[in-house]
Amino acid sequence: QFVLQNNTFLKQIFHSHSGTRDYNPKQMAIRERVFNTIISCFKRHGAETIDTPVFELKETLTGKYGEDSKLIYDLKDQGGELLSLRYDLTVPFARYLAMNKITNIKRYHIAKVYRRDNPAMTRGRYREFYQCDFDIAGQYDGMIPDAECLKIVHEILSELDLGDFRIKVNDRRILDGMFAVCGVPDDKFRSICSTVDKLDKVSMPWEDVKKEMVNEKGLSEEVADRIGEYVSLQGGMDLAERLLQDHRMSQSKQACAGLSDIKLLFSYLQLFQVTDKVVFDLSLARGLDYYTGIIYEAVLTQAGAVPAPAEAQKGAPAEESVSVGSVAGGGRYDGLVGMFDPKGRKVPCVGVSIGIERIFSIMEHKAEVSAEKVRTTEVQVMVASAQKNLLEEKLRLITELWDAGIKAEVMYKKNPKLLSQLQHCEESGIPLVAILGEQELKDGVVKLRVVATREEVDISRADLIAEIRKRTSEA
Amino acid sequence: QFVLQNNTFLKQIFHSHSGTRDYNPKQMAIRERVFNTIISCFKRHGAETIDTPVFELKETLTGKYGEDSKLIYDLKDQGGELLSLRYDLTVPFARYLAMNKITNIKRYHIAKVYRRDNPAMTRGRYREFYQCDFDIAGQYDGMIPDAECLKIVHEILSELDLGDFRIKVNDRRILDGMFAVCGVPDDKFRSICSTVDKLDKVSMPWEDVKKEMVNEKGLSEEVADRIGEYVSLQGGMDLAERLLQDHRMSQSKQACAGLSDIKLLFSYLQLFQVTDKVVFDLSLARGLDYYTGIIYEAVLTQAGAVPAPAEAQKGAPAEESVSVGSVAGGGRYDGLVGMFDPKGRKVPCVGVSIGIERIFSIMEHKAEVSAEKVRTTEVQVMVASAQKNLLEEKLRLITELWDAGIKAEVMYKKNPKLLSQLQHCEESGIPLVAILGEQELKDGVVKLRVVATREEVDISRADLIAEIRKRTSEA
Repeated sequence: QFVLQNNTFLKQIFHSHSGTRDYNPKQMAIRERVFNTIISCFKRHGAETIDTPVFELKETLTGKYGEDSKLIYDLKDQGGELLSLRYDLTVPFARYLAMNKITNIKRYHIAKVYRRDNPAMTRGRYREFYQCDFDIAGQYDGMIPDAECLKIVHEILSELDLGDFRIKVNDRRILDGMFAVCGVPDDKFRSICSTVDKLDKVSMPWEDVKKEMVNEKGLSEEVADRIGEYVSLQGGMDLAERLLQDHRMSQSKQACAGLSDIKLLFSYLQLFQVTDKVVFDLSLARGLDYYTGIIYEAVLTQAGAVPAPAEAQKGAPAEESVSVGSVAGGGRYDGLVGMFDPKGRKVPCVGVSIGIERIFSIMEHKAEVSAEKVRTTEVQVMVASAQKNLLEEKLRLITELWDAGIKAEVMYKKNPKLLSQLQHCEESGIPLVAILGEQELKDGVVKLRVVATREEVDISRADLIAEIRKRTSEA
Repeated sequence: QFVLQNNTFLKQIFHSHSGTRDYNPKQMAIRERVFNTIISCFKRHGAETIDTPVFELKETLTGKYGEDSKLIYDLKDQGGELLSLRYDLTVPFARYLAMNKITNIKRYHIAKVYRRDNPAMTRGRYREFYQCDFDIAGQYDGMIPDAECLKIVHEILSELDLGDFRIKVNDRRILDGMFAVCGVPDDKFRSICSTVDKLDKVSMPWEDVKKEMVNEKGLSEEVADRIGEYVSLQGGMDLAERLLQDHRMSQSKQACAGLSDIKLLFSYLQLFQVTDKVVFDLSLARGLDYYTGIIYEAVLTQAGAVPAPAEAQKGAPAEESVSVGSVAGGGRYDGLVGMFDPKGRKVPCVGVSIGIERIFSIMEHKAEVSAEKVRTTEVQVMVASAQKNLLEEKLRLITELWDAGIKAEVMYKKNPKLLSQLQHCEESGIPLVAILGEQELKDGVVKLRVVATREEVDISRADLIAEIRKRTSEA
């Protein structure tokens, strides 16, 4: 499990009462960087964005999340319809498409969702958290949008530089077909599927998964062993080809449809040059009921990414304490929109959700351990004074700078000490100081000081704006 | 009152059940432009940003909003503490400062707030809406941060190009001092203040305001007339100077403190070069209880900004149907943070809230009447094919483009018609098409088509990315 260090640099301001937290300026600066990378990628792929309200009619959410429905936050009945806070962004998206009769769209949506989960601060889980979804809706030729979703995951994880990763791919039809040909009774598919999910989700060893299948779910040892053979398989297009020839698998039309699509998917992934990270993994099951085709999940594989604090490591296996788990996941859900259409008209969809909260935590942790100075403002220059009674002159100068688009600050004091002005720059990472003094005013210049090097040069007022732009253009 | 036109181009998707709405991609594109302008301004002035949860403990909100408390949305009691959706961003900000013992910060916060108001779609009012706040907290020399807030309003309204505007300024202490010297009993200050507020807020004529004061609030005619003389006054620094000499006003220490600060404020506003739009207006009262000093409000003055639809104009005075009301407001609130501190430690604050929803509506309306084509994506180039069976070649090319950071799209069809590919570009405003054909592939070139002019040029594969960048660099 992922463990977040508790320290003062990026202290989580945790409201124990509600399982929520405030984000301080340092966290917001990191969050903005992550969002910018992700949104740039979505826009590069031509996505639009939409927004939906934070609450939906209670009935919109009913029956969509299975057992997890108990985690939905309801609003108090203060008259009017019963409302609930959104639980994810996928159901509101499907409701939006059906309500507006939209049959094709490529959209992203970044917003907060709400779950009455048992908040576990140390595992980075909150009752209020961001989701970051990209989905392609429409009737298109097979696997092209699906492959683009994986390309997007590959681009985002590469750009965020989180360390090495793998994208596991499977297909609901392959899982169902496999269960059928192994001899699992139809009514046990979902239940067995959720047991298989534990191989991946909580790294349960096969022996324990098998025990659960036999002892709790009532499968015979033989059936369980057959499943065990399949779910240990990993590969690429070659594995899909082999399984299409497999004497048992080939008997399931469903499985064959899934396997052919995996083959087609890999052919597109080759063109997208992302097969290095993608693996066809028959143990990937993913919990949500609404998936109908391909499913996928990205995991970070670099063990060192986020070391656990010393206390947590005691007694815990090293592998577990350093694993960071899933950072993206998704799949195809061709039936969900139809549930909101009065005539049941279907709109095929495929999408991916970036595990943004986990990524924030990793980025915050990286900033901590590298002792990186995270800037919380973008101020380019501080307008300062070397003597007293220069407030008016400073306000005149900063007006020129603001009006020219320069990001600038001045202290809200009539007569601040030069030292305290310089200290403020050091603390907040402001690279330049424009210092006014009696002599400079007489000479029509400004003393421009580079905070990092303490170098000072006199710049004429006419050249100041260009000089500040030049010296801060990389920033 | 501001009236929003109902039409198909930017149709408001209104959920009558909950008084909320979805934002479609066109609305989101406009919203993003507005946010970018505002956030750039906040950053230019050195602001950090924070975020707080959508719900607060119910008790945090209790007793902060007076009568309006009945509009607070409560969550259902599902165990645990009682929670409410935030009603504004100011109270959570004050709670955040007190909780984290922060004594100075300059921050902006853009987020949704919730009010169980009677939703009135035609007046652009919703139960879920954005607030967009900038605040400066800290013990500083008088009126410097206050003046910066007005500078910020001036910059934002100028850059958004919404038409001419005025920023009205007053001070709570001047109002209270005025009431005292006019003979209003102490216990009627708030009540009379809210009557004065109607002069500005709902453009009630003085005669009606006077009637309310005399008949409903029990003032004598004489006292009301004295107030009437003052609240008709408008001016600048000169008016503040005159009132400091006024035989009645000069008797109130409070009023004099407020008037001196108005003078100081105007001296800074002169340096900031924004006095052209700022007017000292003694009728400005603003409703909220927590203001302790300067208050201000920006209004658009251009009558033509948003014409009302024909139905609404019938029987309504022309001035009323075209007024767009307040687009920004704020003031100084030095006591609020202390309400959340166990020891009552005060943190002086001054801030401004941009009326972002009203601005969205105006921008949407402008886009409608100008028939401006609002692009909802930023795609620079569409990768298209002139013949069949070129999907693989297209995917190979678009991979190169994406990996070079070019925003590009391809149709999710194996063999789309060239015409339908070109039509998609016209509809979504994509400026360039990179067309692949058998001949182009043989020649190692791509046919680059400019959608607007239909001009086509062959570009070698090696030069394509540079050529696309060059041709879309203005966009």
